[in-house]
Amino acid sequence: MPKFNPAVETLAAPPIPTVFAWGRSYDGRSGPLIDLSQAVPGYPAHPQMLRLLGEYAGSASWTGYGPIEGEDRLRRAYGAHVAAVYGAPLAAENIHVTSGCNQAFVCAAMAVAGAGDTVLMTDPYYFNQETTLAMLGVKVRLAPCDRANGFLPDLAELRAAITPDVRALALVSPNNPTGAVYPPELLSSVFELCRSQGIWLILDETYRDFLPEAGMRPHALFQKPGWEATLIGLYSFSKSFCIPGHRLGAITAGPAVVEQVAKIMDNIQICPPRSAQIAVADALPLLGDWREENRQEIARRAQALRETMDGLNGWTLGALGAYFAFIRHPFAERSSAEVAERLAKESGVLCLPGSYFGPGQERYLRFAFANADATTIRLLRARLQGFSGAA
Amino acid sequence: MPKFNPAVETLAAPPIPTVFAWGRSYDGRSGPLIDLSQAVPGYPAHPQMLRLLGEYAGSASWTGYGPIEGEDRLRRAYGAHVAAVYGAPLAAENIHVTSGCNQAFVCAAMAVAGAGDTVLMTDPYYFNQETTLAMLGVKVRLAPCDRANGFLPDLAELRAAITPDVRALALVSPNNPTGAVYPPELLSSVFELCRSQGIWLILDETYRDFLPEAGMRPHALFQKPGWEATLIGLYSFSKSFCIPGHRLGAITAGPAVVEQVAKIMDNIQICPPRSAQIAVADALPLLGDWREENRQEIARRAQALRETMDGLNGWTLGALGAYFAFIRHPFAERSSAEVAERLAKESGVLCLPGSYFGPGQERYLRFAFANADATTIRLLRARLQGFSGAA
Repeated sequence: MPKFNPAVETLAAPPIPTVFAWGRSYDGRSGPLIDLSQAVPGYPAHPQMLRLLGEYAGSASWTGYGPIEGEDRLRRAYGAHVAAVYGAPLAAENIHVTSGCNQAFVCAAMAVAGAGDTVLMTDPYYFNQETTLAMLGVKVRLAPCDRANGFLPDLAELRAAITPDVRALALVSPNNPTGAVYPPELLSSVFELCRSQGIWLILDETYRDFLPEAGMRPHALFQKPGWEATLIGLYSFSKSFCIPGHRLGAITAGPAVVEQVAKIMDNIQICPPRSAQIAVADALPLLGDWREENRQEIARRAQALRETMDGLNGWTLGALGAYFAFIRHPFAERSSAEVAERLAKESGVLCLPGSYFGPGQERYLRFAFANADATTIRLLRARLQGFSGAA
Repeated sequence: MPKFNPAVETLAAPPIPTVFAWGRSYDGRSGPLIDLSQAVPGYPAHPQMLRLLGEYAGSASWTGYGPIEGEDRLRRAYGAHVAAVYGAPLAAENIHVTSGCNQAFVCAAMAVAGAGDTVLMTDPYYFNQETTLAMLGVKVRLAPCDRANGFLPDLAELRAAITPDVRALALVSPNNPTGAVYPPELLSSVFELCRSQGIWLILDETYRDFLPEAGMRPHALFQKPGWEATLIGLYSFSKSFCIPGHRLGAITAGPAVVEQVAKIMDNIQICPPRSAQIAVADALPLLGDWREENRQEIARRAQALRETMDGLNGWTLGALGAYFAFIRHPFAERSSAEVAERLAKESGVLCLPGSYFGPGQERYLRFAFANADATTIRLLRARLQGFSGAA
């Protein structure tokens, strides 16, 4: 057989199916499986959302090709939305719709870095960002995020890591996997660092709608004059609207970036799926209250997890925030993959090993706690206490 | 502003929006605009197809994440379909669903070639394949297809072009842009050449359902023992089901290729849009007769174009086949872009310049004749005769 591309062949198998397989081999001995693996809202899409999705998908109006950058209707609606969220002069021309946020990252990364360039990330990182860069032949440099610092990036570490081959810094806030919400002042400092060093800041805000307080402004970066020459914002409609299966995300950036991304997207898929774009454009202004209720619900789940983990011998909360918690397990001598696999198979708790998120994370597990309601979350206490970790 | 990736920045703007802009500036002086630019079926999706799309999109069953490789239901249905089409032992494990055929090409190309490797294509080529390779830093080598040879690739030219840096040969049959249908014997020889030289053959068959005869077998490559170690087949559901806006395509390959593609697709978009996959899985066996009627209709359109072009002074049919015709224009001193732009603005005929498809194609225009019904196609005669080409 001819060779495969080594940059692809050497990638590990996708993590989520591996973890799902552990869940399938759980025999139920400790009670129903608690799935905290892939980040998926544990409540259904709003009936109005489903109605709109069905209506537009069934219409011949959206079966043809659409604009590469996304439907005007969604670009306008989402442009107005982010203008309000960030208190900044953003509009349709700043938006490029993508088929999910992973695709938004692929496009942003390709727009600014080619094979042999370097992109700076944190350890821990979101694994698909690391594998995306690896498969493109882009080198990855990691800046550690210290637990003592709430898993926030350290400005001095970042500054030291920015050498001339670095094209961009990729961050995720609220963070995946830790849940840590990066404070606006930190993001402002990071932005100014990137600006002064002449590199792009790619900021993934997939979990932006799950901040701990209502109406919190995530940061003021889009208010900064000339932000377009530094910042590329990423977002996903999957979590907020509970429609990951419809694959919609967005890039918020200057028109010059949007122009580069359009060239990439034309190659990758010509246009994002159309009928779902129109449905989300309609739903965006309609479902504000529902989304706020969900934010509150997920904040309650966070609180339930905090209480559940309190004084749980050996298990500690490394970080907890929007959507995710990063849990320190008590087994110093075991790999995170072994702990996660046995936790799934013996205790029916499905989560992701810390090692999936970086070389420094063997003591951690990622709990996507937003998947489960508070009652289910409280079951974790007995499950974790009953888990011996003994081989 | 920090630099963009030069491999992306140096790409030309996507061709289709440029051509659409020419169409928008046509003042109607010669009659209604005849749009033969982007390949889009000139008839709507079947009502049953729309009903299924609407039903599944409106269901909460398909809002979550799905399998990276595609829905089992579609992989099984399409696997059985290609088994019948090619008379070969193909099944679900050979299928990776993608979000359109451009994405299938991106995945196939990345699976076998990285930055600095070379992929062999033909001149003319399908432009998104060329720009995909360019943005990935993959080098492109072109083997000319001679008009005298019906725009078919020449085996000796291909053989001479396969140097040790070549990882794959990318072909399109039925061809985009020429419409030429590659004979099964030629494809067999090309396959054996690739096999003997140890390179992959990526074969895009987006227009496979529009062959000139009912039930024609496109080729026998999938019947060859060990085909999995050479062949990667690509397909699009967009044209056959008239649903490009729903973005669905597929790769047919050996399980080892599917495994590599899954790692790429996990990064690019986690899973293809789900509800449309289920709808197409249901529609595939239901709409066989309707698709055969469409094949016949497009054959009638091809015949109408053949008659329309007959004896049209200076304009000749370079090639005509499934979906496309490659038309030689009479203006030796003008670029194909200039001819196409003026044809749009003065005569209301929208088509693509030959230069979009390769450096050797300035004398040609691509007519996506399948877009227009026979009556409209016959209007072309007066339009082309009335077009002076004088500045």
